[in-house]
Formats: sequence, C-alpha cells, structure tokens
Amino acid sequence: MPATTQDGDHSAQNTPAPTTDGTMKAVRFHGKEDLRFEDIAEPKCGKGQIKIKPAWCGICGSDLHEYQGGPSICPTSPHPITGEQVPVTFGHEFSGVIEELGEGVADTWNVGDRVCVQPIIYDGDCGACQAGLINCCYSNGFVGLSGWGGGLSEHLVVPEYAVIKLPDSVGLDVAALVEPLAVGWHAVNASPFKPSDSCLVLGGGPIGLAVIQALRARGCKQIIVSEISQMRKEYAKEFGAHHVLDPTKDDIVARCRELAEGQGVNISFDAAGVQAGLDQSVLALRAKGTHVNIAIWEKRCSIFPNDFCFREKTYMAVATYVKGDFQEVINAIADGRLDMCKKMITKRIGLDEVVEEGFKALIKDKDNQVKILVRGSGQI
Amino acid sequence: MPATTQDGDHSAQNTPAPTTDGTMKAVRFHGKEDLRFEDIAEPKCGKGQIKIKPAWCGICGSDLHEYQGGPSICPTSPHPITGEQVPVTFGHEFSGVIEELGEGVADTWNVGDRVCVQPIIYDGDCGACQAGLINCCYSNGFVGLSGWGGGLSEHLVVPEYAVIKLPDSVGLDVAALVEPLAVGWHAVNASPFKPSDSCLVLGGGPIGLAVIQALRARGCKQIIVSEISQMRKEYAKEFGAHHVLDPTKDDIVARCRELAEGQGVNISFDAAGVQAGLDQSVLALRAKGTHVNIAIWEKRCSIFPNDFCFREKTYMAVATYVKGDFQEVINAIADGRLDMCKKMITKRIGLDEVVEEGFKALIKDKDNQVKILVRGSGQI
Repeated sequence: MPATTQDGDHSAQNTPAPTTDGTMKAVRFHGKEDLRFEDIAEPKCGKGQIKIKPAWCGICGSDLHEYQGGPSICPTSPHPITGEQVPVTFGHEFSGVIEELGEGVADTWNVGDRVCVQPIIYDGDCGACQAGLINCCYSNGFVGLSGWGGGLSEHLVVPEYAVIKLPDSVGLDVAALVEPLAVGWHAVNASPFKPSDSCLVLGGGPIGLAVIQALRARGCKQIIVSEISQMRKEYAKEFGAHHVLDPTKDDIVARCRELAEGQGVNISFDAAGVQAGLDQSVLALRAKGTHVNIAIWEKRCSIFPNDFCFREKTYMAVATYVKGDFQEVINAIADGRLDMCKKMITKRIGLDEVVEEGFKALIKDKDNQVKILVRGSGQI
Repeated sequence: MPATTQDGDHSAQNTPAPTTDGTMKAVRFHGKEDLRFEDIAEPKCGKGQIKIKPAWCGICGSDLHEYQGGPSICPTSPHPITGEQVPVTFGHEFSGVIEELGEGVADTWNVGDRVCVQPIIYDGDCGACQAGLINCCYSNGFVGLSGWGGGLSEHLVVPEYAVIKLPDSVGLDVAALVEPLAVGWHAVNASPFKPSDSCLVLGGGPIGLAVIQALRARGCKQIIVSEISQMRKEYAKEFGAHHVLDPTKDDIVARCRELAEGQGVNISFDAAGVQAGLDQSVLALRAKGTHVNIAIWEKRCSIFPNDFCFREKTYMAVATYVKGDFQEVINAIADGRLDMCKKMITKRIGLDEVVEEGFKALIKDKDNQVKILVRGSGQI
C-alpha cells in the first residue's frame, strides 16, 4: 500500500526552535509563485479568541491553485471581515494545541486541549449565515487564505467558534485530515444520497478519496471511481471503491450503465473538474440523477441542457462544509467508520521545507502524493 | 387586455365536414417546413383503447421547433413503442369527446364523455417508469409527435391510461390548455418551491405564463418576470407577476437582489432558453438557490461552475409532467385557482388553416400570440 511506505517522517528534526522575541516563523503567500518562510509578529490573543500552536497542517489543492495561478481566493484588497490582504499566512487544514484562552471564552476550554480548526470565516449576519449556510456567507473567507493567520505558522489566534475539541482517540496528525474529509462528507450530506444508490466519483485525489470514504462510511451499495493515475486507482480501491475505471481506457458511460442496473448511476461526485469528466458524468446518470460538483474550476464549462431536461437530471454544487460536518467526521474517525483515513498521509515535512518539499514537490509529483503534512510546534 | 380582443373565433366555418369513407383529415408533419393537411386512414379502436374526436387542440412551441428545424423529437426510424416514424400527425395539447370504447376498458367511461389526453407514451417497464417517472421513460414519446395520431385530426385512438375525464365546469377549449399548464405546474412541483420564496421567471411565452399562473395559484410571495415583448409583459403582469423586468433595459441581477431581500431570488424558472438569461439567472439566485430549466435548447450552453459552487446553487431540469399533474391542473381550473387561463387563447382557427394561420402566423407573429387553438370535430 503506497501510503504506508511513503509515510516516512523526517519532519521532526526540521521543526524550527521556538522564537521568544515576539516574532514567529510563518509560511506566507505574497503572490503567484511567491511563497516565503519568514519572520512575522506573533499574534496576541484577544477577547473571545483562542490561541493555538499548530501540530500538523496539510497542504491543500486550493493552496496549490493560489500558488500557481493566484491570488484568486486570497484577497488583494482588504477582506470585508479580516481586513487583511496578501501577504497572508497559508494553512487551513490543521490540528493543534490550545496555548492561551482569550477573555470571555467558555470555561469548558483548557490550555493544552487538543483541537482542530474549522476555518470558515463568516459574518453571521448576512442572509446566508442567518439561514445556517456559513459556507455561503456573502462575505466569507478562510483562516489560512483570507487572513487571521494560518496553520503554517508557529502560532495563530482564531475566534472561539472555529475551534473543535478532539476526543483522545483521534491523533493530531489524523485531525489535520478532518478538513478535507469534511469536504467529502459535506458533499454526500448535501446530495440526495441514499445507501441503496450507485455512485460515481470522478477523480481519486484527496477530495475524491474523502468522498469514497464518506460513501463507504454511509454504507453505499456501489462506488464506481473514474481515475487515470495508477497510484490513485490503488488508493480508491483500498478506500472502498467497488469498481475503478480509467477514462483513457474504459467507456465510462457504458460501464456505469452496465454496472448500475442497466440505467446508470444515481449520483456522481465531481472531484476532478474537467470538461470530459462532466460530459461523461451527465450521460452516466440515470433518470432523475444528480451531478454534484465539488471541484473548483478555473474557467467556464459547457453543458447540453437537453441531456438534463429529458431525464430530469440535476447539477448541484457544494462548497466546503457547514456547522456539524467537522464533528460528524471526528465522530466517524473515533468510532471507526473512517478507519482508513490515516493512510492518506503520504509524506511529513518541517515548516521550513514547505516551499521545496511541499508545494514544489506536489506540483512535480502530484499523482504520487495524497496528503503532505507539515509538522508544527504544537506537538504533545 | 390583448387576449380578449384577439380571441375572434372564425374557426367554426372552416371545420371540414366529417368524412365517411374510412378516411379522415389530419395535419401531418413530413419533415422540415413540410406540414400537410391531408387524408389518411381513420384509426380503429382496439382492446384497451379509447377513440376520441378532438375538440380543441393547441399549437405548441415544440411543434414549431419541429416544423422549423426538425425532425428532432419526431422519430425518423421506428419509435420503440409506437413503431411509427415521420410522417406523424401533430397535436399533443388537446381536449375531445369519447366516440368509442375499446374492449376491456373500465366501465366508468362512456361515449360522449368530455376528456383531455395526457400525451406521454411510455413503456411502463423501464427503471424510470418503475420509479414513477413516466416523463423520463427511456423509450418515451408523445401522442402527436411520436405516432398514435394527434389532436390535429378528426379522430384518434389512445390507450386508456392517457385519457382524463373533465369536470362539467371545465370547458373543452380551456381543457386544451391543460397540457401547457401542466408543464408549468410540474416545474413548480418538481422544484423546491415554498410560498415564501421569491421567484424569477425567464420568458413570458405560453410556458412562462403557465409557470406564473402555477406560482400564483400556490400563493408565491414574489414573482419577478424577465421578458422583452410588450404584449407578453402585459400578460405576465395580468397573470400574477409582481414585477416585470425587461432584460434590454433593466439590470436583472441587480434588480432581483434589490427586490428579493438584498439577496436574490430563491428559484428561477427558465422558459426562455437563452444563454444571457441563464447567466443572469445564476447570478440573480441567492445562496442555495435553484435554476429550473424548462426550455428545450437547440445547442450547448456554458456555465461557470464556481458561480454555483461558492454559493451552493443548483441547476435542475424538468420535463413535461408526471402522473397526477394533469389532474391537479384540472382541479385548480375547476376550483378557480387558475382562473385566468382562458385568456391565454389569443386566436381560434380551423383544421384546414393550421399551416397558414397556425404555424406560419405564429412564426411571423410569435410575440403577439399566446395560444392558438384549432377547432376539431368533437364539439358538444
């Protein structure tokens, strides 16, 4: 299994010594292909806030997109909530340990608590927030992309609402996977999924694998995956796919119909975001089927409305997660329903290695990595 | 009000005299721009079938599409259920009177019953039919497009399942509107509509007007219509729209946000099927909003997935109607919830006038007509 053999941890010896002069180390994004490991002021913990030492932080596909083609999500003018703009500290998939409690936070929190951070920044007042859709907040942002620091630093301060306590049985490394797992979990939650459904997953990268694990955890009858990379195909199979197809070799539409009662799949989850995959997905759906887009696209795509119309198909898109999704994922890790997730960790590196061993390695070797974790100072 | 002034009925004097030699008159589609008023064999009523004299038959946008650019829906090889191919008799929006009952039909039917026909042809066995989605039947077709005759003839024979009895209070002319009204009614039924929603309707043609009436009948809080034609704008207003916008003059996105609690509409119904309308609709939707496509498109369109993704918007498409929709529309006409629908009839013509006064007039004068009805022989 590739995950185990590649999970060599040489990160410990590269962790920088703690700073004591009011500054700290952070990995900050200044603009396209400009990511710097630098000294910045250590943040102070204010009212209603919690200060955290990150333990482990994952590098996400969105981080890579920003690095290669951004700033796109990262603000280039003051963000409406954080007031910050590039340079911003990166890292929104992370776990850590509480090091300080701000005035007024609930007395259920303690210094030393092991936590993870749900990074959505939202205003709480807009129509979307009022409807419970914090992921759709009309001013939303992300810790680690839009300001308020990020997991790729020695310390950060976040609002109390963003912090989620971990049960003892969930390790700090695995806790850094909760964010990408929650993206897949939420996609399944937001879709019309039923356990008796046949599902197609487009793409076996970290999010595709998160969807596969979420579907397996919910007892999905049939999981079909479409993926090109050999290593990702092996992961998909190991993580619970019943059938793994290769769009360069298999006729995805014909195979899905054949495998799914002659009719096609009920739902397809798009974690690839390419035109050919979308086209195959729409035709691979049975009547009343749903295509769920999770991918972020760089440009427009095309659809043929009549393909949707004559069979009443639906295209829906999901974004990140809502309140409750993180806790559901943590519970599913704790009770064993997401028992394979640790295998997603394919490499561990130090904070000072993020640019070369993290971003550049991922760009060169994307198909052979699932999740690279960066070791922080908040280890227990 | 345009509907009343244009509803001059000069159809009666043009109705052909009944034939008695085993042939009958029918309007048949032979191919692009080739529609013929001709003599064909009168159909015989078989087992489980009901023979009907059409009373009134509407000309539909789909008929026009076939005439101008088809055959597209009409089969050019034997249809899997009817076994027929062009030439086919046109007319799928019609009412009529029962003239003969085939062996084995229920004894609740009587010769002379006033009826309308739900024209979907389905096999009943496929996965879609088994799931109750006769409109998505993998072999589906339509009376009046795919064989089994059509409403634009002196007689036709249909399976018992297609026939729906009319209450005394629903006139035969209004009953010919049940089909297009059911398309709008079904679109609202299939959507996540709630009375408290703000809805945008794109296009004020027959189907757009059917949606407006369906929304009004369900007590929709706010109906906003986007339409260019002056006459259709007036209809839209009279049929229940609270705000009628003109996309050549108004900023549809900004106006929808302004009118709908600063957030945008919950649902938009697309009865226009043009790229600019789709683009405006997606941006005019609030978070978690739904675009409902009812239109048949001639080519592909483009969407920007991120517009859907970051606000979790949905694109769904609906097709015609399912069992129950016709009866719901008939009930709503009978109890007054669809009290304005008769005004949709803007012209009445005879069967022998269909090509010139029906199709060619509609093509030339589309914006000034809503529904042209063709008088048949089944008058009471």
